[in-house]
Amino acid sequence: MAQLQQNSIFQFFETLLRGLGNVVFQNNALSGLIIIVGIAISSWTASVDFLIGAAIATLVAKWFRADKHAVKQGMFAFSGGYVGLLMGVLLDKEVPFFTGEWLLLLLLGGILAVPLTSGLGFAFSKLNISATALPILLLLWAILAGVLYTNLPQNSVAPQVLATGKSAVYTWETFVYGILNGFGQIFMQVNPITGALILLGIFLNSRIGGLMALLGGGTAVFLAWALGYDEPVVQQGVIAFNSILTAIGLGGFFLVFNGRSLVYALIGSLLALWVFLVMAVLLNPLGLPALSIGFVLVTALMMLGAQTYDFVQPIPLEQLSKPEDHMS
Amino acid sequence: MAQLQQNSIFQFFETLLRGLGNVVFQNNALSGLIIIVGIAISSWTASVDFLIGAAIATLVAKWFRADKHAVKQGMFAFSGGYVGLLMGVLLDKEVPFFTGEWLLLLLLGGILAVPLTSGLGFAFSKLNISATALPILLLLWAILAGVLYTNLPQNSVAPQVLATGKSAVYTWETFVYGILNGFGQIFMQVNPITGALILLGIFLNSRIGGLMALLGGGTAVFLAWALGYDEPVVQQGVIAFNSILTAIGLGGFFLVFNGRSLVYALIGSLLALWVFLVMAVLLNPLGLPALSIGFVLVTALMMLGAQTYDFVQPIPLEQLSKPEDHMS
Amino acid sequence: MAQLQQNSIFQFFETLLRGLGNVVFQNNALSGLIIIVGIAISSWTASVDFLIGAAIATLVAKWFRADKHAVKQGMFAFSGGYVGLLMGVLLDKEVPFFTGEWLLLLLLGGILAVPLTSGLGFAFSKLNISATALPILLLLWAILAGVLYTNLPQNSVAPQVLATGKSAVYTWETFVYGILNGFGQIFMQVNPITGALILLGIFLNSRIGGLMALLGGGTAVFLAWALGYDEPVVQQGVIAFNSILTAIGLGGFFLVFNGRSLVYALIGSLLALWVFLVMAVLLNPLGLPALSIGFVLVTALMMLGAQTYDFVQPIPLEQLSKPEDHMS
Repeated sequence: MAQLQQNSIFQFFETLLRGLGNVVFQNNALSGLIIIVGIAISSWTASVDFLIGAAIATLVAKWFRADKHAVKQGMFAFSGGYVGLLMGVLLDKEVPFFTGEWLLLLLLGGILAVPLTSGLGFAFSKLNISATALPILLLLWAILAGVLYTNLPQNSVAPQVLATGKSAVYTWETFVYGILNGFGQIFMQVNPITGALILLGIFLNSRIGGLMALLGGGTAVFLAWALGYDEPVVQQGVIAFNSILTAIGLGGFFLVFNGRSLVYALIGSLLALWVFLVMAVLLNPLGLPALSIGFVLVTALMMLGAQTYDFVQPIPLEQLSKPEDHMS
Repeated sequence: MAQLQQNSIFQFFETLLRGLGNVVFQNNALSGLIIIVGIAISSWTASVDFLIGAAIATLVAKWFRADKHAVKQGMFAFSGGYVGLLMGVLLDKEVPFFTGEWLLLLLLGGILAVPLTSGLGFAFSKLNISATALPILLLLWAILAGVLYTNLPQNSVAPQVLATGKSAVYTWETFVYGILNGFGQIFMQVNPITGALILLGIFLNSRIGGLMALLGGGTAVFLAWALGYDEPVVQQGVIAFNSILTAIGLGGFFLVFNGRSLVYALIGSLLALWVFLVMAVLLNPLGLPALSIGFVLVTALMMLGAQTYDFVQPIPLEQLSKPEDHMS
Repeated sequence: MAQLQQNSIFQFFETLLRGLGNVVFQNNALSGLIIIVGIAISSWTASVDFLIGAAIATLVAKWFRADKHAVKQGMFAFSGGYVGLLMGVLLDKEVPFFTGEWLLLLLLGGILAVPLTSGLGFAFSKLNISATALPILLLLWAILAGVLYTNLPQNSVAPQVLATGKSAVYTWETFVYGILNGFGQIFMQVNPITGALILLGIFLNSRIGGLMALLGGGTAVFLAWALGYDEPVVQQGVIAFNSILTAIGLGGFFLVFNGRSLVYALIGSLLALWVFLVMAVLLNPLGLPALSIGFVLVTALMMLGAQTYDFVQPIPLEQLSKPEDHMS
């Protein structure tokens, strides 16, 4: 085992899996392994897209001599892989898997993800905050706009998240599937088993992270129920996923975990849901998906604000790891 | 009286009124009192919207343990109240006063105004400038987009500011009402008495502020006359209000007052009018109002530039009060 | 000659020509002189527009007591002149040369260019990067939107850069004209002699700059050929010009020149082409031209990233001059 860990191919794969874990704030290769299995169960091409994109970005970052620690912790694997996976899922009709155009897009995404991640990360670090998934969303929108508008102007890859008018009754399934699919939606997968494995991957690295994720997702689904939001949309997990990410991020990852940061994280979860819906409305005419933009904007904003409040205690960027490491 | 000032309810109301004064750069509760009366004369619901929004944001900021001095000076009362008032005026048909949905919107606006104000304020302070009304405009546009597009896609709350072709002759009334209504337009009210009371509130705290406001508004109306802009639009005050705010801000509030900053402020006033019109053109198809965005963008830009010129002398952010305190 | 150089009118013209040289990163009055002749050959009104805009902005900057060295090096002549020239070319039908409206636009552009250049430059310098042409593009889009949408909503000044379907065969002319016109396109001129003179102006000040420009433009045209891009569009120089500017900027101007920065610059050139095409797609429905936005965004991003890589070595902003001054 010790020998295995010294093997450079093994280490490279470990970096890719850490990158996958980073998507849900879990810098842990075992978490990443469980998550990639979960994704593959739902869509094996999506898992391949992630690994190839992550590998390209990691190699480019190494070549550019980016910070070695950051590379090894999967910072670029996160960006390149996530962009690759989302592109693959969103463009699976326009750009079929394993074609030349597909490889070109993965290369383009993987290469550009590197300066975008470093550049925005550097700029945001001046404000002591993380850019989270912002580089990925900007890059993805640019690529989607390029592919969609050039080839087929009438096309749209925005999934249905707005009220359809075909409302159904809320049952226990709405809650269970609505939350589990929320985990899957982070990777654009609708499969409760995938969601359950992602949740397992989170719990494995951080119990607080797992609990906050459930609380965040649960709060969002509960609010949707209280407001009578379309049941089918909720059950697809679309309502929960921005809130899940925000709750993990604010509830112990970026802020020292305690009762106050828990409250702060739940307020953030609700705002993230609302910002996501507003952005979905705004992006819909462009045919672009809102994805995790609610989480990205609200988390950035609440971390900027957090630095001016005594209510919560931000963890310095260079010490970010997992909630359990920063309990007072 | 001394006893009254120690009363915490009295102090809370003082904070709300200071917040109202801050909209026109006058951190003075008596100015705020005169202005709220002026607004109530034109629309009592608008004044109630301001006070409730201001109260919610102030309480949330206290709960988050934001900087005590900033809270007391009405920084959050300004944001929450201004958002509440503008929402109330713009959505008075879609969301009737004193309904459940109305309270929900005020709560949403008041709560989100807090991290947005702290967050953008923190980010802008790294460049030594104030975010002025930017958090309010961003929040308002997001809320309006959410409400309008979800319910009635064909709807628009953008007021008529562009040329209508129904031009009339300019008289002395165009100038007097055009300027006075410019003060009212800051709160989306068209009532010369309201405008006169707001002007009185400004003069009460700062004569320089009042004079700059008149100069800024007058210059804008004069330019509109010189260019033959539609008379009815001018008389509604739409042309003057961005210039009024810019002239107060650059003419003594953010820059040490002297002949050069007066010139700089008047250049800013003209640019603010032009940027406002451009933004109105750009936002019109989205059905969103441009409001004070001309003032916000031009003031931010000219304060960034001011730090690189010897022509004018910026006042450090933590010393901002009123022009008379910084006369050399 | 020594006497001539002390002449203030001569010095003023030198500043204007340095400003023109700055557009292609060559702070050299003789380069500027050759380039203005090149532009005049294609369009004498464009060269006049540049000089008047540059003069207005320089005088305003002097009046504002901006940094004397920056003024003299043509920083404001660059902004005001470039905005003036681009406005003149893009609006030549709507706003005829040498009319009152034309002078008003040049004044507006020249004046607003000053705080915009200082302001964005100041903000970007906090991240140790240059704003390059961003102030010019933002100002230009605002002016174009104002003029176009107010007068004629159906109008568009966006040139044809997207696939037309009328493809022709690539010949040696595609390559030669495609690259030479790429230099002309920086000033919206399609004339190979103009392009050749601009290239000469670059070479005169920096051989490395000239070689990088040719490499960048050549790579872009080569890629267009490999992907079978519409030949007529390529021959117009539209494909090359963002890549030319990016290659000069990253290849020795902002980064110490060596084999690695050459590679980094060529990656940047390709990304700039792609970002330009994406932005052209996005701006097309608004009727606005993408111009050099690909160069601006990619250069800013890759310079942000460069500060975190050991692969390349950024030159401090205050030491920027020409590649040959920073060879190790």
